Amino acid sequence: MERITATYFIETPFEPEAAAAVLAGEQSSGTFVAVPGETAELKQRFAARVESVERLETVTEPAIPGASSSTGNYHRALVNVSWSVENFGYNLPVLVSTLQGNLYEIRQFTGLKLLDLDVPSSYADQYAGPAFGIEGCRALTGVYERPLIGTIIKPSIGLTPEQTADLVRTLAEAGIDFVKDDELQGAAANSPFEARVDAIMNVINRHADKTGKKVMYAFNISGEMDEMLRRYDKVVSSGGTCAMVSLNSVGLAGAKKICDQRALAIHGHRNGWGMMTRHPLLGIEFTAYQKLWRLAGVDQIHVNGIQNKFWESDDSVVQSIQACLTPLLGGYSVLPVVSSGQWGGQAPETYRRTQTTDLLYMAGGGILAHPMGPKAGVLALQQAWEGAVQGLGIPEIAARYPEFAESVRKFGSL
Amino acid sequence: MERITATYFIETPFEPEAAAAVLAGEQSSGTFVAVPGETAELKQRFAARVESVERLETVTEPAIPGASSSTGNYHRALVNVSWSVENFGYNLPVLVSTLQGNLYEIRQFTGLKLLDLDVPSSYADQYAGPAFGIEGCRALTGVYERPLIGTIIKPSIGLTPEQTADLVRTLAEAGIDFVKDDELQGAAANSPFEARVDAIMNVINRHADKTGKKVMYAFNISGEMDEMLRRYDKVVSSGGTCAMVSLNSVGLAGAKKICDQRALAIHGHRNGWGMMTRHPLLGIEFTAYQKLWRLAGVDQIHVNGIQNKFWESDDSVVQSIQACLTPLLGGYSVLPVVSSGQWGGQAPETYRRTQTTDLLYMAGGGILAHPMGPKAGVLALQQAWEGAVQGLGIPEIAARYPEFAESVRKFGSL
Repeated sequence: MERITATYFIETPFEPEAAAAVLAGEQSSGTFVAVPGETAELKQRFAARVESVERLETVTEPAIPGASSSTGNYHRALVNVSWSVENFGYNLPVLVSTLQGNLYEIRQFTGLKLLDLDVPSSYADQYAGPAFGIEGCRALTGVYERPLIGTIIKPSIGLTPEQTADLVRTLAEAGIDFVKDDELQGAAANSPFEARVDAIMNVINRHADKTGKKVMYAFNISGEMDEMLRRYDKVVSSGGTCAMVSLNSVGLAGAKKICDQRALAIHGHRNGWGMMTRHPLLGIEFTAYQKLWRLAGVDQIHVNGIQNKFWESDDSVVQSIQACLTPLLGGYSVLPVVSSGQWGGQAPETYRRTQTTDLLYMAGGGILAHPMGPKAGVLALQQAWEGAVQGLGIPEIAARYPEFAESVRKFGSL
Repeated sequence: MERITATYFIETPFEPEAAAAVLAGEQSSGTFVAVPGETAELKQRFAARVESVERLETVTEPAIPGASSSTGNYHRALVNVSWSVENFGYNLPVLVSTLQGNLYEIRQFTGLKLLDLDVPSSYADQYAGPAFGIEGCRALTGVYERPLIGTIIKPSIGLTPEQTADLVRTLAEAGIDFVKDDELQGAAANSPFEARVDAIMNVINRHADKTGKKVMYAFNISGEMDEMLRRYDKVVSSGGTCAMVSLNSVGLAGAKKICDQRALAIHGHRNGWGMMTRHPLLGIEFTAYQKLWRLAGVDQIHVNGIQNKFWESDDSVVQSIQACLTPLLGGYSVLPVVSSGQWGGQAPETYRRTQTTDLLYMAGGGILAHPMGPKAGVLALQQAWEGAVQGLGIPEIAARYPEFAESVRKFGSL
């Protein structure tokens, strides 16, 4: 019978093998006293199985509060556990409850992080996955052989639909490929959702009629279920190509229902993610996380960026991009969204380390605040990537392209 | 204009006031370079406001990775921030993105936990809240002036519908008020959801016809949106009174859609919660968390129990029960679900510290493994609570009631 596997980084004051057995018991058929009905056959079929325990370092301070150690030692280990698909069939929320669920509560662990998960090939028959993915997002925007260049409406909140549409006009005329709402903008008092869609799509549709290029705008439809579906339909009927969902705030069931509509590319914003991963020994790694959302059908997912303004290290960002670009069950293509403090100067290092242009590369203030204007701002980003792909560094790209050179002068010290 | 407020426990290598300003900027109109359109009027209306900063201790080791301190000091503080309701109106996912969202990513913090939140009274006009709450769950089960006594089907997974129904029959005849699926049981290969509902509700309905007492069974409907709704309808049409949702795995949009049906009491299982709260300086406290789910309409929510088998301290459990019993906007009644290693011996301490019987008190192995049989197991739990309410301790209750005395002998050393 096919099995689902998960790899955890654990820390425990007990023997790692014993702690792993507690995990497997808690997450399948276990209880704190033996009960009738827990037969050998049932255990054989449904019990989680500890596949391997690889001991790592021992430390003397626990990472998070839990059982204390009688020896003063806390052992770290990599643990691989498996479950039969018979336990819950094909149900992403129950998959999450099984792989994450109560195990963060187990006192025998003073640290536990889900590093990775693998689902068997039969999942491919059950989950349609992203309706667009990388190729679909390229087709919708007509952008090939370079990253999609995107930006965010700033200020995040407070602009009227008309002000937002004016900004979108400026950005469209500047040659932008993609624009998104901020995750804080749902429907502010001065920017009702429908009015915002009307104003923005009017600009985008006219620009497309004139130039043949349709800017992809990710309208933030995050909200309660029926409202999300209504807003989704509004975007579709207005000729939009994309909707944004705050994945953690909306949740797996709601986000999947949106993805299942399959008429718009879904921009998966991972705000709230820091809580789930920032501690090295608590939560979930992006490698595991992004697989869940690809199964749900998200087409684009945030990964931060090189030298971002947030806490995340470059190594972690590179690993996240690689995770997105690694096929899942042979497919489930998802476009990594690079953002946070990006201005083009990070393009050479991003390309050097990932060797890909299959990215949505988001620059916030870097475009509109470009000294030579927004058009130069977009151009500078394209130049940065042209140079990066040719293996050039920042000084060489700046020497070749005046718009990029201006970016370096303005943003290079940030 | 009405404002939403949030209180955070932060740690930062910078001045707490400066770090709080970064938080407020990131979570409203800020960006890393000034952009046109960020006018004074717009900021006045939509910017988040730091209401207060209360400095606490200074430490020399950061709680979680972030910016390093040039002085070697990391300052802790309580920070209160507010947002106008105009920013996003009434939208729980956007509320979460605003109050939690990207702020866990901010490098200026080496620790950040959302302790509490307050929404203005106009929320009461927008959110119907729990359809049943404490009084409704009492009315559905006919249990008054003592906790509802509940148990969990164990083994968690592996029983057939018939085996599960047999167990439910035993429990119903033993006088149980409430039974729930484990969160790992959605629809195992040998226990299709519909067949399980049919088998169990057949037992429960017959028992109700005979005795007038309808056992509340929380069927785990957690899953993808359409399937959850189908399963919800199946429970309703079969005469069930309750459905269980794994809140974190399903997410806010999906869970609220289920609560909005208002035909079943919703048992909110918080598995996955450990990840969100176990670190003292990362994530969210239960006081804030339970408010979100009460607004969404959850009728019952897990709080662990005194001397639980998990990591959580008794103080934290008591605080969680008190949070649930504190009216939210004057209502939004939710029944706290006490569980994890409970057998009746914790009743005196639970009552002493909370002075309430408005609880769903769950015992797992404690009932079915009672030496005198399940009926004695249920009776022992009722006795424990009768004694607890009279201010008796374990020895006094054991001296008065033989079934409880047997529980003490069997489970008292666990």
